Amino acid sequence: MPEFARRMEHVTGSAIRELFKLLADPGIISLGGGNPARESFPVEELKEIIFELMTESGVNLLQYGSTEGYMPLREAYLERIAKPKGIEGDIQNVLTLTGSMQGLDLLCKVFLNPGDAVLVESPTFLGALQAFTVYQAELVPVNMDDEGIIIDHMEEMIIKHHPKLFYCIPTFQNPTGKTLRAKRREQLVRLAEKHDLIIIEDDPYCDLRYKGDPVPPIKKFDEEERVVMLNSFSKIISPGIRVGCALGKKEIIRKMSVAKQCSDTHTPNLTQAAVAEFLSRGLLPGHLKRILPYYAERLAAMLDSMDECFPESCRYTRPEGGLFVWGELEDGINVTELFKIAATELKVAFIPGEQFFTCPEMGKNTFRFNFSSENRKNIESAIRKLGALFRQYA
Amino acid sequence: MPEFARRMEHVTGSAIRELFKLLADPGIISLGGGNPARESFPVEELKEIIFELMTESGVNLLQYGSTEGYMPLREAYLERIAKPKGIEGDIQNVLTLTGSMQGLDLLCKVFLNPGDAVLVESPTFLGALQAFTVYQAELVPVNMDDEGIIIDHMEEMIIKHHPKLFYCIPTFQNPTGKTLRAKRREQLVRLAEKHDLIIIEDDPYCDLRYKGDPVPPIKKFDEEERVVMLNSFSKIISPGIRVGCALGKKEIIRKMSVAKQCSDTHTPNLTQAAVAEFLSRGLLPGHLKRILPYYAERLAAMLDSMDECFPESCRYTRPEGGLFVWGELEDGINVTELFKIAATELKVAFIPGEQFFTCPEMGKNTFRFNFSSENRKNIESAIRKLGALFRQYA
Repeated sequence: MPEFARRMEHVTGSAIRELFKLLADPGIISLGGGNPARESFPVEELKEIIFELMTESGVNLLQYGSTEGYMPLREAYLERIAKPKGIEGDIQNVLTLTGSMQGLDLLCKVFLNPGDAVLVESPTFLGALQAFTVYQAELVPVNMDDEGIIIDHMEEMIIKHHPKLFYCIPTFQNPTGKTLRAKRREQLVRLAEKHDLIIIEDDPYCDLRYKGDPVPPIKKFDEEERVVMLNSFSKIISPGIRVGCALGKKEIIRKMSVAKQCSDTHTPNLTQAAVAEFLSRGLLPGHLKRILPYYAERLAAMLDSMDECFPESCRYTRPEGGLFVWGELEDGINVTELFKIAATELKVAFIPGEQFFTCPEMGKNTFRFNFSSENRKNIESAIRKLGALFRQYA
Repeated sequence: MPEFARRMEHVTGSAIRELFKLLADPGIISLGGGNPARESFPVEELKEIIFELMTESGVNLLQYGSTEGYMPLREAYLERIAKPKGIEGDIQNVLTLTGSMQGLDLLCKVFLNPGDAVLVESPTFLGALQAFTVYQAELVPVNMDDEGIIIDHMEEMIIKHHPKLFYCIPTFQNPTGKTLRAKRREQLVRLAEKHDLIIIEDDPYCDLRYKGDPVPPIKKFDEEERVVMLNSFSKIISPGIRVGCALGKKEIIRKMSVAKQCSDTHTPNLTQAAVAEFLSRGLLPGHLKRILPYYAERLAAMLDSMDECFPESCRYTRPEGGLFVWGELEDGINVTELFKIAATELKVAFIPGEQFFTCPEMGKNTFRFNFSSENRKNIESAIRKLGALFRQYA
């Protein structure tokens, strides 16, 4: 058989897959994934919407659609998602995505030559690291503090590596739960202007806010159209329908559409139409109002239990939203080893934080906990067990 | 703004898009697209299936699914699509695709380095040419006669260009409607074995047969697992739901899954489940029985009218299935010029054949007609008008 392409050499996903094999045990409590709560899905509303859509426009929805996306979805996205965040745009600024992960793939496709540098928050979303690796990017980590990436370090890295793209999850970041301060968002855009950079603002969690005030998107400060915003409906409606939207400069969106045409032709019409109806019927605010207290309760339960059971030396984030808490044990503690004990002996799973770093020697003492997919009781039980384990090594 | 990637330089899709702007006129009769007939969609069956699915497994369908695909679809595909064609396989041989176009993108991603040679039938599907161009492949055309690609020419091109992949649509090919003879299918596989080649067998039209006997897939002759078969539900159920399947060697499917994880995470669960139910309820054979006579009638109407109205010097295919008739006027006639007259003055559209060739000087006197999306009366009227136009230049 011919050899696989060079771009696939470093993308096995095997490390985390091996870890996840341990999670197949149904008796396990998992703080590992990033799944929304099963109870959070608007099943009845979507069932009714889809039935009506199939009744009224079945034939059109089953025919080929346009690569740029189903028009009512792009309109509803502008009106119901972008506008309330202070972002205006034309229909030509919007592209429908088969999940916002596709936006990342398309942006890599249209911008990256092998060896091009990409700045990322350190740590960051594993899927993004994989996507950039497939496009043979040079990954350049930018340090973060409690208020998100450190602007000075970012400029230093820009001057040293001349990146084309900066990828970030500014709100309730995956994996840290941190939110980039508004002031830094503006500074970020000015840096991008000064050094001719594109910013990918991946914002799937921004509407999952349990307290505090919303922060404007980075896009809001974007005078030269250097920011491409990716929004996902995975965390606020359903991940299984795979619908997201990109909003950016027309020239970039057009190029992404050309790339999308050769990727999946278009996103399924029915799933796009279902999201469009959900938005245009004004169901999202009520739906969020229903699900946010669930998540808020679970986050509070997790943090309370950690405060009570975790060793003093363990530091962790206290996010105001999103799906994740990020923690750090003392230097020298290998969390992956603790994970193995936890998963096999305690029947509790989470993700060792080293998975989220660009280089294998970083973050060995860190971990990510998800609080959305288990109920309060399970979260408390899992944290108690992990606390006892961590105390042995702290 | 930073420059776009080199891979996007030759992929504008603009030529055909410019042509298609002429088709926006609602009064036009279009033999241009490749859309299934509106009347062909099983709207009621799918509506009922989706309603039941949402009622019984709404929560599971709205949650994240697996990258490899929804298990009941992969099973139903093996049982109801592959097996009746004489192809056996395990579940690990199957990957669900967001439309079979995605299969092409993923195969390029996992196999092609820039500059790698890819053999294609000449002419071939425009979308495939674009996909290979995005991956900076060297496109090598292989000549065809009435029975499909010419094996000797193929071997000559293999020896000269050392390709990794051969891409073909063996049955009712797009754009020619030609079907590769069974004997040549076997020879093709032996050539691939001799020269260490992967064959991509793209087979979206094989079930749209109006007369003659089915020909076994190339995959049937594949002893060394060098053939990756792509099947689409676009032409036999619905293109708007974007569901297809790839069947191939486990090692290749696994690598494609890794690439898919970074492309769109997974195909929407609901559309996969709808196709799975459609297949496992045994609805496909009856559905095909209902729609094939439509298409057969339209093809016959097109060929009869062409026989009657087209100039003697025009040669065209008489396919036994699929969606397209391919024709050739005398050397020296520029069909793109005739297309412009047809679209603007006669209000009839089709695709100038040069769009389907790898190099811009080929096929200037050729054309592709689609017979699935207009009714019999419109087809006859369009062909009469085109016949009169073509006669002026023949």
